[in-house]
Amino acid sequence: MDKQIDELTAVAHALADAARAAILPHFRATDLHTDNKLAGGYDPVTVADRAAEEAMRAVLADLRPDDAILGEEFGTTAGTSGLTWVLDPIDGTRGFVAGTPTWGVLIAVGPDTGPILGVIDQPYIGERFIGAAGRSRLVGPHGASDIRTRAPRDLSEATLFTTFPEVGTENDRAGFEAVARNVQLVRYGMDCYAYALVAAGHVDLVIEAGLNAYDIQAPIALIEAAGGIVTNWEGGLVHEGGRALAAANRDIHRAALDILQAQR
Amino acid sequence: MDKQIDELTAVAHALADAARAAILPHFRATDLHTDNKLAGGYDPVTVADRAAEEAMRAVLADLRPDDAILGEEFGTTAGTSGLTWVLDPIDGTRGFVAGTPTWGVLIAVGPDTGPILGVIDQPYIGERFIGAAGRSRLVGPHGASDIRTRAPRDLSEATLFTTFPEVGTENDRAGFEAVARNVQLVRYGMDCYAYALVAAGHVDLVIEAGLNAYDIQAPIALIEAAGGIVTNWEGGLVHEGGRALAAANRDIHRAALDILQAQR
Repeated sequence: MDKQIDELTAVAHALADAARAAILPHFRATDLHTDNKLAGGYDPVTVADRAAEEAMRAVLADLRPDDAILGEEFGTTAGTSGLTWVLDPIDGTRGFVAGTPTWGVLIAVGPDTGPILGVIDQPYIGERFIGAAGRSRLVGPHGASDIRTRAPRDLSEATLFTTFPEVGTENDRAGFEAVARNVQLVRYGMDCYAYALVAAGHVDLVIEAGLNAYDIQAPIALIEAAGGIVTNWEGGLVHEGGRALAAANRDIHRAALDILQAQR
Repeated sequence: MDKQIDELTAVAHALADAARAAILPHFRATDLHTDNKLAGGYDPVTVADRAAEEAMRAVLADLRPDDAILGEEFGTTAGTSGLTWVLDPIDGTRGFVAGTPTWGVLIAVGPDTGPILGVIDQPYIGERFIGAAGRSRLVGPHGASDIRTRAPRDLSEATLFTTFPEVGTENDRAGFEAVARNVQLVRYGMDCYAYALVAAGHVDLVIEAGLNAYDIQAPIALIEAAGGIVTNWEGGLVHEGGRALAAANRDIHRAALDILQAQR
């Protein structure tokens, strides 16, 4: 098991390195071309998204040809090993096209039962959060260190992040707001970076809705390896997507889950 | 004039360097102590805020002893030169305590009529936006370059940032939302970093309310040196604080201002 984790970790770093190299030339480029994926909304897909997923798929074809792939841009590629790499080349594309530094490359791998290793990488800052097998690390511009989620504290002293008020139905938003009224500090709009801050011990809760598998698998593996817990709003598995509640520990997860359940 | 700008620019870099050194040891420190400045709210003042302002005041006492100072933490110090340095050691303290990388050190200098030089510095990323006398620069982790605001585009293609839904009265929020309904993309919660993105040509508009002089003077000078315009919601001067409309150019400023005025 340890040998497998070591090997998968090395592959994950190679994937994140490849994505960085593919994306950075396009970040904040003044000629960045954005297509419109949805007829009825604004969902920019950039050259950078596609280039990064292609670069990561090339790495996997070389290093892990028997594994399956699920990627945001190019869909599913079958495998025979029982493991699937789940890739979101740029989570937070809206933030990316606006020049913010809080979008990220999401990489996860695991069997169908859920991810066992997760990476959130921020190429512009040069910051990588990686977790597996009960250990999470941050490698950033000021050095590398192990990271752990926060110890339990009262909900009234907690920090909550979300991409709301943008994501989710009116009903979803009511659930979020019910929790928000009970915490100390609410912050918005950080995309996947908010999950990294849970893993690193700075944030207690993230609540989101409308997620796909590739949005949430890397956060799940990273946060759980750092000591936290990530479920759906019913307390069940969320690695196939939906509404997510990420928490620094079981106590604060329970406190937030009770409020979400009471709202139904 | 050029010689004065060069000298003030050198001092501004020295101030930003001093603030970085004072703040970084405290960022994401697990023993960070936060006081509560407001009885009725959550306005954390950290050791880092105070240390950074003290460090900058020490630089000014050495290099610019005749200039006045207005700082968020330690208030006003009188001067005799006619110039005032306006300092916000950590703009976005809530983001700071939550571990985000979008707070910043704000430094401005100018006569009473308004700032002539502005700096937005992000110490963790190692990214500095500085503007004066019709020229703005970004010095960041991937190099240095001149920056300019965006060319005019239709409001329906614009990107708008704000710290709302957190800041401002209900009435202020209605004004913001009237503009938000007419743009392509709205993003939240970036604190001063949103103004830096206007200066760097990635964002068209920032709308905020409830600002103090030290929140807005550095953005004004930086954005105007990069080709943009920053006023209050009536189109007048805002360097003493209040409700700010920052825009990449006069055309998009006019389009947003018309909507804000129609809401009154």
